[in-house]
Amino acid sequence: MRKGSLIVVSGFSGAGKGTIMKKLVKENAEYALSISMTTRKPREGEQHGVEYFFVTKEEFEKTIADNGLVEYACYCGNYYGTPKAYVEQMRQAGKHVLLEIEIQGAMKIKEAFPEAVLLFVMPPSAQVLRDRLVGRGTETEEVIEQRLNRAVEEAAGIENYDYIVVNDDLDTCVEEVKAIVKTAEHAAYRNLEFIDSVRGELSSLLKGDN
Amino acid sequence: MRKGSLIVVSGFSGAGKGTIMKKLVKENAEYALSISMTTRKPREGEQHGVEYFFVTKEEFEKTIADNGLVEYACYCGNYYGTPKAYVEQMRQAGKHVLLEIEIQGAMKIKEAFPEAVLLFVMPPSAQVLRDRLVGRGTETEEVIEQRLNRAVEEAAGIENYDYIVVNDDLDTCVEEVKAIVKTAEHAAYRNLEFIDSVRGELSSLLKGDN
Repeated sequence: MRKGSLIVVSGFSGAGKGTIMKKLVKENAEYALSISMTTRKPREGEQHGVEYFFVTKEEFEKTIADNGLVEYACYCGNYYGTPKAYVEQMRQAGKHVLLEIEIQGAMKIKEAFPEAVLLFVMPPSAQVLRDRLVGRGTETEEVIEQRLNRAVEEAAGIENYDYIVVNDDLDTCVEEVKAIVKTAEHAAYRNLEFIDSVRGELSSLLKGDN
Repeated sequence: MRKGSLIVVSGFSGAGKGTIMKKLVKENAEYALSISMTTRKPREGEQHGVEYFFVTKEEFEKTIADNGLVEYACYCGNYYGTPKAYVEQMRQAGKHVLLEIEIQGAMKIKEAFPEAVLLFVMPPSAQVLRDRLVGRGTETEEVIEQRLNRAVEEAAGIENYDYIVVNDDLDTCVEEVKAIVKTAEHAAYRNLEFIDSVRGELSSLLKGDN
């Protein structure tokens, strides 16, 4: 079985990355969401190994010490991180693992896993992004402005991503992500073993010819 | 209309790159083959603007002087090169231009056109490559050995390509090339104008909010 890919998904709040990822996982058995490890307490209905792996501060810090996290960060006094073992286990089972993360985390992952595919989800325009944030009706003007400010910050790093997808139509966007993931398997740097095996075989054939 | 891509296709002799390109162009109106310019004399049945643009040595050297070639080389006393104007004209018309070229030429193109998509066509194995060369029945053992030697040389540079495609089944291979070309349009570095426009719009929206 071919090892699955690691897909990092970032994008402005309101660009729809969560919706894209949920649809991908729901409709395609070869995709899986990464599950984060956290020290925050479970909310009602949240289950260990579904929404998060809930662990103690000691367990989390031991995992850090064991180099067992793809990346981690601390927000509001709680740790959040991506367990390497889970991601690796899913990939070994042939699943493409989707990891939603902001830009700094994405860059760390690219360093540690150069074969990761980094996607940035864009709205068709900034106005559409604003309209979507307003349209939710759940956010105050202040929150919307904070999100737009945050979008400006995140936008500074888009060039560091491998691909952008424009979320205009959800179905189209999901198909595009699938095509990108499929194509990434053809990247030369992801096929070094195969390339080397053909090289070795070529050399053997020539020696045999002589 | 969206500008077409520049697709550089390399691969071992016998890997089937010519067949892939012909099928792509025949079945997909959005693909076109690049036409080379040469100073060699037309063979019987060859037409100017179909197989080649046939020009005089003076015309060719003037085109070099005018920086009018994507790349060029001299073989057996004749010049061969890729006219920039033709490639650009096709791309502006929305066509993906396929350019078959060996590895040194491919690297020159990547330098001059960083947005070019570089494909390397591989056989499923070196043995299959040898069998195909033998199977043609038109080549002497000596020629086959030369080609395999050449393959070993070319194989040294495969990592410098963006993608490899394995030509096991022709139809599958053509579909893979199409998926790669489509996906390449999503590369972040190919969408810098769009990214900048969203950035500019975001900033304007925020100024408007204040």
